[in-house]
Amino acid sequence: MSAYSLEEALHPKSIAVVGASERGRGSQFFTALVDLGFKGKIYPVNPKYSEVSSLKAYPSVKDIPDPVDYVISAAPAPQVSQIMKDCAEKGVKCIHLFTARFSETGRQDAIDLEKEVLGIAREGGVRIIGPNCMGLYNPGLGIGWDSDFPKETGSVGLASQSGQAAREIIGKTTQRGVFFNKAVSYGNAIDFNECDFLEYYGNDPEITLIMMYIEGPKDGNRLFNILREVTRTKPVVIIKGGRGQSGTRAVSSHTASLAGSMEIWNTMIGQAGAVAVSSIEELIDTAVSFYFLPPITGRRVGVAAGAGGATVLAADQCEEAGLDVIALPQEIRDELRSQGVQIWDWIGNPADFSINMGDVDFAAPQLLKMMAMNPNFDLIIASVGAPGGGGPPGGRPGGGGRPGGGGRPGGGGRPGGGGPPWANQPMSIEAFIDQYKQINDYKPVLGLVQDRTPSTNDMDEERWKSICEVTAKLIDLRIPYYPTISRAAKAASRVIDYYQSRER
Amino acid sequence: MSAYSLEEALHPKSIAVVGASERGRGSQFFTALVDLGFKGKIYPVNPKYSEVSSLKAYPSVKDIPDPVDYVISAAPAPQVSQIMKDCAEKGVKCIHLFTARFSETGRQDAIDLEKEVLGIAREGGVRIIGPNCMGLYNPGLGIGWDSDFPKETGSVGLASQSGQAAREIIGKTTQRGVFFNKAVSYGNAIDFNECDFLEYYGNDPEITLIMMYIEGPKDGNRLFNILREVTRTKPVVIIKGGRGQSGTRAVSSHTASLAGSMEIWNTMIGQAGAVAVSSIEELIDTAVSFYFLPPITGRRVGVAAGAGGATVLAADQCEEAGLDVIALPQEIRDELRSQGVQIWDWIGNPADFSINMGDVDFAAPQLLKMMAMNPNFDLIIASVGAPGGGGPPGGRPGGGGRPGGGGRPGGGGRPGGGGPPWANQPMSIEAFIDQYKQINDYKPVLGLVQDRTPSTNDMDEERWKSICEVTAKLIDLRIPYYPTISRAAKAASRVIDYYQSRER
Repeated sequence: MSAYSLEEALHPKSIAVVGASERGRGSQFFTALVDLGFKGKIYPVNPKYSEVSSLKAYPSVKDIPDPVDYVISAAPAPQVSQIMKDCAEKGVKCIHLFTARFSETGRQDAIDLEKEVLGIAREGGVRIIGPNCMGLYNPGLGIGWDSDFPKETGSVGLASQSGQAAREIIGKTTQRGVFFNKAVSYGNAIDFNECDFLEYYGNDPEITLIMMYIEGPKDGNRLFNILREVTRTKPVVIIKGGRGQSGTRAVSSHTASLAGSMEIWNTMIGQAGAVAVSSIEELIDTAVSFYFLPPITGRRVGVAAGAGGATVLAADQCEEAGLDVIALPQEIRDELRSQGVQIWDWIGNPADFSINMGDVDFAAPQLLKMMAMNPNFDLIIASVGAPGGGGPPGGRPGGGGRPGGGGRPGGGGRPGGGGPPWANQPMSIEAFIDQYKQINDYKPVLGLVQDRTPSTNDMDEERWKSICEVTAKLIDLRIPYYPTISRAAKAASRVIDYYQSRER
Repeated sequence: MSAYSLEEALHPKSIAVVGASERGRGSQFFTALVDLGFKGKIYPVNPKYSEVSSLKAYPSVKDIPDPVDYVISAAPAPQVSQIMKDCAEKGVKCIHLFTARFSETGRQDAIDLEKEVLGIAREGGVRIIGPNCMGLYNPGLGIGWDSDFPKETGSVGLASQSGQAAREIIGKTTQRGVFFNKAVSYGNAIDFNECDFLEYYGNDPEITLIMMYIEGPKDGNRLFNILREVTRTKPVVIIKGGRGQSGTRAVSSHTASLAGSMEIWNTMIGQAGAVAVSSIEELIDTAVSFYFLPPITGRRVGVAAGAGGATVLAADQCEEAGLDVIALPQEIRDELRSQGVQIWDWIGNPADFSINMGDVDFAAPQLLKMMAMNPNFDLIIASVGAPGGGGPPGGRPGGGGRPGGGGRPGGGGRPGGGGPPWANQPMSIEAFIDQYKQINDYKPVLGLVQDRTPSTNDMDEERWKSICEVTAKLIDLRIPYYPTISRAAKAASRVIDYYQSRER
């Protein structure tokens, strides 16, 4: 094993991109470094060019006159042994091998080549990330493999064996307002592996939350021990790819790992205090929850805003996720009554405003505040919709509404707002913010912002934009949001599981 | 019980809307009948107006000179007893009581009023849908409660205790290309209840598939017996609202039903051959699958197109849903090789094209056809993306791609196409259609069309539109589509469960 540590590998001052070009395979890494504003030196390496995008290109790593800390190789597999020798000679600390077609192919010659490459690296003191992976994303240093990655830094550390999964996780997580400190796609993991990254993130003071996508752990015992240590102070959310029989087969050709049986895995994860999830959506929902919510250990949930059957299903789904949907305390009913809310004795938890939708923008935010200030609730889920005034005056007759037997006219429709007509009747984002800012006694609040599956009938760009406005405002308030109540409840429950287990 | 049957209630030739007005509570029903093109006569009833939207208005139902088959009441609860007397005198066959604030409030006076109303109706021979519900949607007759409901007719029958749920189900199901023959939101069900609608749909030759949202069955034994009968010939997909403790509490104030325990319910549903689901999304996914897919009894699934970690998770999620992800048959590998597909020996099931994304638009549709023609597969899930040419020439360097070790240049990106960059690499819809049309041996195909949660970064309307184009083309081909592979696999598995159980 070489002297160079992950600390050095993750903080290069100069990067050479082997195979750099203005088009083609090598262009992606090179362009991304430029676009993300890498603060160190970038050296294109390509014998075919004297220049790449106005930067002097070198025929090989050895020809670069200045020190090179880190190399990204996009060259074909047969060239990698020579590149590794050049790196060793040059004193390169770490190489990221984007290059694939090694052991994951299952072909003997490729397996042998991988071993040969590792041997040269070990002998020459070069550390390896990969092969068959996308490498590093560190927005603070301007390192990444995709020009579209956000430049914002956050406090999440991600280690993903799959580059596709890493890209999906980074894309979808940052969309939810949660940003990364460091991320790595580590592929076949012939040198640095999931244990190294986990251990590093565990000790990294800039990282508060760790996400992992693992196909085949290289060292289960070590992983278990590090997890047990790290989860004492930082939540670790893990998805395991290759859980079943066919998944195992797919893993083998994907990153050449031997996936363990799901039972062993689940036992290990649970005992180690980490949070196991089974889809990318769950991984992201859970991470978003940990990122924005304080440590919650109670399960009593209040659901503010809602209508009809969606309210009933909301209760079911919260309970099925392990939350406790308590009855609405009498003092809240009394307060609603004193404020002149007509349906004060009908409102429950989850709140259902369908009987008088006119109350949604007045009473629902009031209720949110009352629940948040009430010691009987541990957390609140609030259904939030588009800014008011988006709809026709007086409210479109919304089929989703429930019949009123009095109260303001306006049919079942809700005044203004822009959720889908069948949404779990949301309060408007303005009304929400207005009350939320008055909550002194801090209580975790989760936002429910319903979206819809695209379809031919669904070309309403205005509504689409208004949903984006809502989510942007929630992110500004550091409130996590979810597209369904079931997903919100499951994520909250996992956060509670973690903090309860840490308390014990 | 009166002489009038559901057959007559569902096929009115004339409808009076009590409380009809140009604005407010009564306007919705009146306007919807006009907008949906009701083929019979519409009579506004409102003592305050002589005319509503250019139609002569009457002070009461009795004052209408011609026969009235069906009445919709949007009047406040205290007026309903008198309206019911008028209906009895007029010989109205059925009244839909949109009017709420009856037993669902839990107030004794409201419970008494509901009983009184039912007594008058029974004595006068008037049947009731409701109270506290949205009533009928029958696009063929131009009846419905929302002007936005599609006019297209299909073969689905829906009975929903909740109006909000009915609206959500109708909205989201028709977006997926599946249309309704008859739907009813039936609320407190003091007269016609879920058993009546189920029995009717079971005998209705225009209906091939039944969807139900039930909070509290009025007669469990009868429901069980009818289900057992109906499911012999037609799939019935049911979601139960109020499954848990708090859900039960919410149900009670929502439609005044006593929700049974989940165990009893599950046992009943399973024994009766119906399909129980636990969210609206699952209800719709399952219905869409039954609607478009032929009877499938085998579980061997092929997944065409994919990349990296998403492929591994696809295998896991298919297996966890109860499908059998078989290994790719050797004859398909041989055929891929003979067609010049470079990664013929690397491609598996699920197929992973990340190692050479240039193959996605050539080899993935080929593979789709090979899987569909191969007797080892019972069904195929194909990942389909936006039409080709949408991306920059040569493909954007997609971080989601896997490193190539040869093959065409173009980095990890895929040529053109418009899925999210992290999507489970789809083939383009054109390439898909091209091959799909050559499949002689008919095999069920499910489409995977990935969407994304809206966010501030995500204002790409072009991409949004291109997804709509893809889904429209799939609907034209009568191919069901799903936003995630997990949802596709679960829905397919439920369809297989049903047909396997029917075979036995």
